[in-house]
Amino acid sequence: MSAPIGVLDSGFGGLTVLRELRRALPHHDFVYLGDSGRAPYGGREAEAVLDFSEQCVERLFAEGCRLVVVACHTVSSVALRHLQARYGSETRRVLGVTIPAAECAVGATRGRIGLLGTARTVASGTFTTEVRKLADVLVVERAAPLLAPIVEDGWEETDVARAAVRRYVATLGDIDTLVLGCTHYPLLRRAFEGALPPEVTLLDPAPWVAERLVDWLARHPSFASPGTGRLRFLSTGDPARFAELGERFLGEPVGEVEYLAERGGALVPAVRVVPRGQLVR
Amino acid sequence: MSAPIGVLDSGFGGLTVLRELRRALPHHDFVYLGDSGRAPYGGREAEAVLDFSEQCVERLFAEGCRLVVVACHTVSSVALRHLQARYGSETRRVLGVTIPAAECAVGATRGRIGLLGTARTVASGTFTTEVRKLADVLVVERAAPLLAPIVEDGWEETDVARAAVRRYVATLGDIDTLVLGCTHYPLLRRAFEGALPPEVTLLDPAPWVAERLVDWLARHPSFASPGTGRLRFLSTGDPARFAELGERFLGEPVGEVEYLAERGGALVPAVRVVPRGQLVR
Repeated sequence: MSAPIGVLDSGFGGLTVLRELRRALPHHDFVYLGDSGRAPYGGREAEAVLDFSEQCVERLFAEGCRLVVVACHTVSSVALRHLQARYGSETRRVLGVTIPAAECAVGATRGRIGLLGTARTVASGTFTTEVRKLADVLVVERAAPLLAPIVEDGWEETDVARAAVRRYVATLGDIDTLVLGCTHYPLLRRAFEGALPPEVTLLDPAPWVAERLVDWLARHPSFASPGTGRLRFLSTGDPARFAELGERFLGEPVGEVEYLAERGGALVPAVRVVPRGQLVR
Repeated sequence: MSAPIGVLDSGFGGLTVLRELRRALPHHDFVYLGDSGRAPYGGREAEAVLDFSEQCVERLFAEGCRLVVVACHTVSSVALRHLQARYGSETRRVLGVTIPAAECAVGATRGRIGLLGTARTVASGTFTTEVRKLADVLVVERAAPLLAPIVEDGWEETDVARAAVRRYVATLGDIDTLVLGCTHYPLLRRAFEGALPPEVTLLDPAPWVAERLVDWLARHPSFASPGTGRLRFLSTGDPARFAELGERFLGEPVGEVEYLAERGGALVPAVRVVPRGQLVR
């Protein structure tokens, strides 16, 4: 029986990673969990990021996954070691995006790497730590807290997006390579290209994440479990909105989105009720 | 013994309300609770807003308050009736901002009211319901999800803020009165003034909220409990950041900020630890 690969993200952003994973592994099934109801994670306390990501990973294992890819850089920077220690076993694994991001940055740079990410990602310093294990280069990490909300609101092609990207790029100083350290930012590629000097390399780590996963599966064949290329989508936010916005991230229609609610510290399938007016329990 | 008045908000925004309450009641003590660690509430599911606001109200009562003012329009629109039903008694009361906002809008309008607020505030339709109880006028409510994050990030005087405000104002169509239906928006007053035609009245409900509270205390003298004008600040987010940004909202230095953490479904005093790198439990 085939086991789907789980992909975890704080919202829609990770669909840009799923797109690359599907391209690299077209015969695998995937279950994507976007915690849109609690996004963005980037401004949250680290403890909250751990709580939320535990619940997401547990849901994905409950859905039959044996391998979970943490697409979200915030979770990967702060909680990956914990998730691996808590859930990793001979039959279950959790992989992240920070080391692949560091690898492709080191491969591309001429010595000065910049990263934009969420406040939590940058506060962790994990990307810099991983780069320094690979090469003695300069790393500048800066928080860009408005970019994920701008993309979640569908404003990536507006003057607001362009002005915000310009301001964040200006905080990085003199760099030769810019890593998009949040899964939302690839949708702002045009704004970034407009804001960066032509000699700066713009890097979305997602294709490299996919390439590293293919390699990892070759080295861990017991986790390779091809199916029929089936996709499922789970979300803690509005499923209709997820389906509508998700298409922009995934590059293909999303179809049905299954709603999850938090009940007693776990994410469980539920019927979503949108109350009008005052809500009284 | 004097009892402080509790003021509840999802983050810093409610400090614009506290500023007006202090001006109107300079001898009262106040305890302000900003749930910055879980802000913004505006995109959250209604159930989450109820959970969070229950925890905040319970903490404020535990701090000795007998009267809690919900400064946050999102909480006031969605959860006020619930909070009043659950916690209101002869000795404890919870008041909101939606009815005062409706009252001052009806007092100012020539027939066409616009409101900008969070997605959750607008989805509730509560402001329109309250206006309709008072007058037969047109009400247009539109969500402005990026404005609170722009202000929380200190970007209220930037081209990003001006462009975003222009876009949201354009969604309102032909109005004569614009209600700032989120406690963050008064900090964007200059951007709003630049985006609105001169004949549109711009309304921050906060001074009227304060005036109504003075009136309410005169009618409920057992809740009037003047002290020495003392202020305390509680926050679930970074206390240093709260103190720094809070001054802009309050109009005076904030001083010490006490940190609260969520433990077992309650907000309790705690020591804040900011982990670097991976966090392992």
